[in-house]
Amino acid sequence: VDAERAAALIAIDWGTTVARAYRLDASGALLATRSADLGIQRVTGGAFAAALGALLGDWEADAVPRIACGMIGSRQGWTEAPYVECPAELAAYAGAMVRTPGGELAIVPGVTCRDATRVPDVMRGEETQLLGAVSPDEPRVLAVLPGTHSKWALVEHGKLVAFATYMTGELYALLLEHSILGRMAAQRTTDEADAGPAFLAGFDRGSGAGALAHILFGARTLALAGELAPHEVRDWISGALIGHEISGARIWASRFGADTERVRVVGAPTMVERYMAGLARAGIAAESGRADAAAQGLWLVAGRAGLVH
Amino acid sequence: VDAERAAALIAIDWGTTVARAYRLDASGALLATRSADLGIQRVTGGAFAAALGALLGDWEADAVPRIACGMIGSRQGWTEAPYVECPAELAAYAGAMVRTPGGELAIVPGVTCRDATRVPDVMRGEETQLLGAVSPDEPRVLAVLPGTHSKWALVEHGKLVAFATYMTGELYALLLEHSILGRMAAQRTTDEADAGPAFLAGFDRGSGAGALAHILFGARTLALAGELAPHEVRDWISGALIGHEISGARIWASRFGADTERVRVVGAPTMVERYMAGLARAGIAAESGRADAAAQGLWLVAGRAGLVH
Repeated sequence: VDAERAAALIAIDWGTTVARAYRLDASGALLATRSADLGIQRVTGGAFAAALGALLGDWEADAVPRIACGMIGSRQGWTEAPYVECPAELAAYAGAMVRTPGGELAIVPGVTCRDATRVPDVMRGEETQLLGAVSPDEPRVLAVLPGTHSKWALVEHGKLVAFATYMTGELYALLLEHSILGRMAAQRTTDEADAGPAFLAGFDRGSGAGALAHILFGARTLALAGELAPHEVRDWISGALIGHEISGARIWASRFGADTERVRVVGAPTMVERYMAGLARAGIAAESGRADAAAQGLWLVAGRAGLVH
Repeated sequence: VDAERAAALIAIDWGTTVARAYRLDASGALLATRSADLGIQRVTGGAFAAALGALLGDWEADAVPRIACGMIGSRQGWTEAPYVECPAELAAYAGAMVRTPGGELAIVPGVTCRDATRVPDVMRGEETQLLGAVSPDEPRVLAVLPGTHSKWALVEHGKLVAFATYMTGELYALLLEHSILGRMAAQRTTDEADAGPAFLAGFDRGSGAGALAHILFGARTLALAGELAPHEVRDWISGALIGHEISGARIWASRFGADTERVRVVGAPTMVERYMAGLARAGIAAESGRADAAAQGLWLVAGRAGLVH
């Protein structure tokens, strides 16, 4: 990271709660990163131009193209970039970008798909991370992007073939903040590992058969029985939800003939660690994707669209 | 219901949010019912005697035994009535009742069980409803008591053999009040049936394979795609959760060799209607249990304990 070198592209991953800007040089190398709590939910009255200025600071002076992905292209964002349909690849994203009215940003579209029962699914931002995390040379990769709404995706030679969303992170927050389970949970002590015994016990429970609505009640009954300490409740619930997700996603991926014995985990280090631990527990070979996947993906779309050369 | 006839027993179903009192005559017939928002969560500083007075009103003058079941016997209630272990039957409940310190009430214990992986489950109050809803003459009944924490139970000749809890009602409330799905939901218009097309569409989705965390996201994507109207979102989510519960509970019950093609639904009419509609959709013969199951169950325990003759 070298802030002095000349920028060739400003790339922004602009989500619901956070906006993250990357300054890239002419070789696509990452020079610097800035982030702000200026996700689209926190920008009021459509003041996106001002939010962009606050996010970029003195980078505004860079006379280089700007590209963004994520919820900034949703109906609630700056300018709507309609979904492209799955299967989708680099050329489709580059060809379907939408500019903000003042020309401030080129926005990468999200992707939509339909499952066997015609229920749709959507992503915005993760399609770009996947471009950065999976090389076009790779014949077939099963990837997970953990988060509030975790995405599992099957990518073949750079083409997004299918994906499915799991509300794992949102359910975790709801249960901890508002449910009877959350009332039994105490903060973890700081010297405990993120993916320790309580996480793994919850993971095993969540990975097994049974309805999630029943599995989760185990956090209450184990705590009532004194078999789960208050400071372990959070990790147990996190493990149960992630176990449930991984178990369900493997069944989902197997429908596409995917090898579910190997999974790439792409995302923030804390979440990646938990998923890696869970995948290892399930006997699945896990590898972590590059940390700057979004920046790399935006660089590739910008290149394909002729914004950089 | 005849309020003038002499009472032989005051029976109380005292739960977390509501307390419901029944006045029964010497034949066990229900004379009258009173309820108050005096569940144990709403009684502060241990003022249970005052709450009992407020609930009973002039019934306090009845010089008859009083019996209660439900969360009033929990650690957070008036006096803890330790759980009896499953399998459990009438004699076990009657023999393990606990009196409040001032002798105001005899409290029926709850029940605990362990599944194949030794994770415990618990109920308080539903064991008494089951006594009232299933005759000892019936060889084997699979029953569901819908609610915040739905209970599925297998009863053989009056004996509770196994049960499992599903946090269906609590998840529904969490999702509607606090999740991204709730923000997409509008109130239903009043002329729609409780178990109409949106409920059944959600039910079908929830009954199918797939992780619940993925299934639920369908409410968002279908709404985004304009294929689910805002006023249909609540029913769709309700259907998905109930479908997921019924589907999981059938697998659970089949492990005990239960006939899962016939289910008795015991509870409040609104919830019973939804479960009956869901069961019918799944091709399962459903029958509703008697509405006064709790009163009847309390009468039976009181008789066995010699409180009434």
